[in-house]
Amino acid sequence: MADGSNCDLKSLSPLQLFERVTEQGEKVRALKAGKAPKDEIDAAVRMLLSLKLSYKTTTGQDYQAGLPPKDLVLINNGTTKEEDEDLVDPWNVQTSNAKGVDYDKLIVRFGSSKIDTDLINRIERATGQKPHHFLRRGIFFSHRDMDQVLDAYENKKPFYLYTGRGPSSQAMHVGHLIPFMFTKWLQEVFDVPLVIQLTDDEKYLWKDMTVEKAYEYARENAKDIIACGFDVNKTFIFSDLDYLGTSAGFYKNIVKVQKHVTFNQVKGIFGFTDSDCIGKISFPAIQAAPSFSSSFPQIFNGKENIQCLIPCAIDQDPYFRMTRDVAPRIGQPKPALLHSVFFPALQGAQTKMSASDPNSSIFLTDTPKQIKTKVNKHAFSGGRDTIEEHRKYGGNCDVDVSFMYLTFFLEDDDRLEQLKQAYTSGELLTGELKKVLIETMQPLVAAHQERRKQVTDEIVKQFMTPRKLAFEF
Amino acid sequence: MADGSNCDLKSLSPLQLFERVTEQGEKVRALKAGKAPKDEIDAAVRMLLSLKLSYKTTTGQDYQAGLPPKDLVLINNGTTKEEDEDLVDPWNVQTSNAKGVDYDKLIVRFGSSKIDTDLINRIERATGQKPHHFLRRGIFFSHRDMDQVLDAYENKKPFYLYTGRGPSSQAMHVGHLIPFMFTKWLQEVFDVPLVIQLTDDEKYLWKDMTVEKAYEYARENAKDIIACGFDVNKTFIFSDLDYLGTSAGFYKNIVKVQKHVTFNQVKGIFGFTDSDCIGKISFPAIQAAPSFSSSFPQIFNGKENIQCLIPCAIDQDPYFRMTRDVAPRIGQPKPALLHSVFFPALQGAQTKMSASDPNSSIFLTDTPKQIKTKVNKHAFSGGRDTIEEHRKYGGNCDVDVSFMYLTFFLEDDDRLEQLKQAYTSGELLTGELKKVLIETMQPLVAAHQERRKQVTDEIVKQFMTPRKLAFEF
Repeated sequence: MADGSNCDLKSLSPLQLFERVTEQGEKVRALKAGKAPKDEIDAAVRMLLSLKLSYKTTTGQDYQAGLPPKDLVLINNGTTKEEDEDLVDPWNVQTSNAKGVDYDKLIVRFGSSKIDTDLINRIERATGQKPHHFLRRGIFFSHRDMDQVLDAYENKKPFYLYTGRGPSSQAMHVGHLIPFMFTKWLQEVFDVPLVIQLTDDEKYLWKDMTVEKAYEYARENAKDIIACGFDVNKTFIFSDLDYLGTSAGFYKNIVKVQKHVTFNQVKGIFGFTDSDCIGKISFPAIQAAPSFSSSFPQIFNGKENIQCLIPCAIDQDPYFRMTRDVAPRIGQPKPALLHSVFFPALQGAQTKMSASDPNSSIFLTDTPKQIKTKVNKHAFSGGRDTIEEHRKYGGNCDVDVSFMYLTFFLEDDDRLEQLKQAYTSGELLTGELKKVLIETMQPLVAAHQERRKQVTDEIVKQFMTPRKLAFEF
Repeated sequence: MADGSNCDLKSLSPLQLFERVTEQGEKVRALKAGKAPKDEIDAAVRMLLSLKLSYKTTTGQDYQAGLPPKDLVLINNGTTKEEDEDLVDPWNVQTSNAKGVDYDKLIVRFGSSKIDTDLINRIERATGQKPHHFLRRGIFFSHRDMDQVLDAYENKKPFYLYTGRGPSSQAMHVGHLIPFMFTKWLQEVFDVPLVIQLTDDEKYLWKDMTVEKAYEYARENAKDIIACGFDVNKTFIFSDLDYLGTSAGFYKNIVKVQKHVTFNQVKGIFGFTDSDCIGKISFPAIQAAPSFSSSFPQIFNGKENIQCLIPCAIDQDPYFRMTRDVAPRIGQPKPALLHSVFFPALQGAQTKMSASDPNSSIFLTDTPKQIKTKVNKHAFSGGRDTIEEHRKYGGNCDVDVSFMYLTFFLEDDDRLEQLKQAYTSGELLTGELKKVLIETMQPLVAAHQERRKQVTDEIVKQFMTPRKLAFEF
C-alpha cells in the first residue's frame, strides 16, 4: 500500500533522510531500553550508521539530533526551540523581549539569508528605483534566493509575485497592509503579474465558521486589498473555496505536493497531531501550490516553470520551506522569498497582533477619534515615568510602539531620524510622539477608507475572475 | 490551534467517543507501566470511567476494547481482526477459504444488513420489475438503509445513484463490470440520475504514475463503462483530477468532510501510518463527497439533501462508513449502500482479482481464443481427479470457478440450476462445464468490444461534461 517504505535512500529528500535517521535513533534507544537481544540492537545500530552516512553524503552536513538540514529547519517543535528562543509559526508568535522577536537568531534557525546592503543596492540597480523604506529600514529583513530572481530579471526572464491572506474576520488592521504595500511596490518596479491567495478554506478548517462565512470574509478582505491600489490588469485575487472549482491546474499541483509530503513531515514542520482533522493535515499543499505557475494556466498560457517570488511575514515561511523541499521532486523551480518582521500590537512587541482584539491595533475601519483614543490609551511607551526623568534620561525607541509604527508608516527618512533623536534625547515627550503617530495614521486610514468605498462588488468580481493578465507568456 | 481538544463530549460522534475511550485506556496503562504517582493514575482512571459512561449513553452499548460501535467497525486493524478472519479493505482482500470470503461474518463485523427475501420482494413490488439475478443469487448481498431509499421512492421523493472506479490500468476485466451492470439495471428500473467517479487522483497518489497517465486511464476506463450501455442523458462520469477544477460544489463538500474526520479516524479505518503522504490521508474525503447532491449543482439545480444510493463491492464500505459518520454533522443525509461480493480470480476464490495479472481473469480485451485458453488452463476446478471418480462422487460447485463465473454471467436461472445438478451429480465433466463458460463469455466479451468501438472520444466528452441531466430538481 505505502510505496514510500521500500524506496531507495538516494531518492529521499534531505528532510526525509533526516527523519529516517531520527526514527532509527529512536528505535535503537527503544531496543536498548527494552533490553532487546544483542544481535537485534547491533543490526539496528548498523542501520543507523548507514543512514547517517547517507545523510552526510546527501546534505554535506553531519547529522545532529534535533537539527534538521539547513533550509529545512523544523520550528514548531520542542526539540529545536531552546528555552529562551522565540516561538514563530503560522499560528503563534511569542517572545519575551519587549523589542520583539530576535530576527538575526531567526535567520540562523530558519536557514534563510539576511537582506543586506549589497542586495538592497542590487535591487536598486536592477530596477532603477529607490528601494522601498521597508527594505531600507529592515522591515523586510530576510530572503531565500532573491539573487536568483534578480539574475533572471537581469536576463529578461519572467517571474511572478505570490502573496496571500487568511480571511479570519471582516476587520483588517494596518499591520495586515504591510505585505500588500510592499508587494504593490515590487509589482510596480519589476512590472510582473501578481496572484493573491485568500485561504478561506484554511479559516473554515481552523475556526468555528461556515464555508459561506469564510467565503464572505474572503470577499470583504479582497476589498481592503484592492484598496491598496493594485492594477486589475496585472493582479489576480482568488479564494481557495472558489478557485479550486474553476481551475484546470490548481488541484493537479495540490495533489502533486500532497503525494510528496508525509504526515511525519507536516507533524515536524507544523506541529500537527493525530487528533487534527485531515483537512488541516493536507492544507499545507494548498498554500504551496500557487508557488507553481501551472496553477494559473489562464495567466501563464499553460507555461510551467515560471519563477515565483513570495513576499510574506516570516511566520509563513514553514509552508514555503516545505514547498521548496517538494519543488525539485515534482519538476518545479523553488519559489524565492522575501520575509518581513511582525507588526507589533499597540500594547507592545511581545506578541503578534490579533484581529479579534479591537484595542490591539489601529483597524482600517477606525474613525479619526478612535485612532486618537487607541494610541493615547494603549500604545506602549518607551518614555520615562515623569516628565522630569524623561527630559533627563530620554525615551527608548527600541520598545516604544508609537515609534515602531512610525517606522512602518512614516515615509520621510529625515523626519523619522529627527523624531528618534529628539525622543532619545528627552527633548520630545511621549504625548508629542503619539501626536505625530495619530496625525500620520488618521489621513492614511481615512484615505484607505475612501479608496475602499470605490471598490464595488463589480470590481471585486473583476479581480477574482480567472483570466489572462496584461502579460504575454 | 486545534479546536477539537476542548470540545464537549456530547458533540462527539460514536467513533470519536470510541477513540477517546481507547486513548484514555492507553494513557492509564502507560501511567501504570511508568509507575506514575498514584493521584495521577487515579485521575486518569476517573476520566476513563467518565468517558466510558458517555460512550454508553451515546451508543447504548458497553465499551469493548477493539470493538468500535456498530455501523462503524474498524477493519484494517489488527485489534479487530481475529486470526481466522478474512481481511477486507479497499486495498486487500484475503481469505484462506476456497469458497471465498465468509460474507455472513462480514455483515456482522461491518454492522451492515443482509439483503433478504423480504427486501428483494419489496424492490420487485416498488419497481414492478423482476429483481436482477445479482439480487436473486446473493451477489449483491448486503445493504445499509435500502429500506429508507424504498420509503422515499414510494413517496415519490427523488434519489440518485453513485458508483465509481479507480482507473489503475487500461485493461479492465469482466469482474470490473459487476457494479456497472447492476447500477445500470438500478438506473433503468428506478429511473434516477447516476454519477460515476473515476478516482484518478487516488491512483496517482498510490501508484508510481504521473497525473497525466492517471487521467488517461480514467478516460480509457470511461469507454468501457459507457460500453455497458449507460444513457448519456441520465449519467455523469467524472475524473477527480478534472472535475475538482470545474465544480463549484465538489471542493466545498470535500473540505467539509475533511474538517470532520481526524487522522486518528482514518488511521483506524484505513490503516494509514505517519509515513503515508498527506494526499492518501485526506483522500477518503474525495471519495465521500459525491455522496452529497450539492457536489453536483448542475445536476440537482443546487439542491442539497437529495438521498444517495451507492452500489459497490463490499471492500469500498470503509469509505462510506466514514461518510455516514460525518453526514449528520455537516447537515447531509447518510448515503444508502448496496454491497456486492468479490469477483473471484480464475485461480480460485481465495483472493480478489488483480488487473495487473493477465491470467487472473477474463479481460475485456481478450480474443475468443484467449478466453478459451485461459478458462481451460487456469480456471480452478471443483471436479474430481479422474473421470471415474467424478462420475461417481460428482463435482463441487462451491469452489469451482467456472461455475462461480456462470453465476455472475449466465442469466438463465433454469439452465444454471441444470448445470449445477449435472455437475454435482457427476453427469457433467469439468471440461464440459468450462465449455459452457467459454461459450457464455466469448459472445459477451465480443459484444462488449463491439459496443466499446462505438464509443468515440466525442461520446466520452459528452458523458464527462458537467451538465444538467434529463431530470428536473
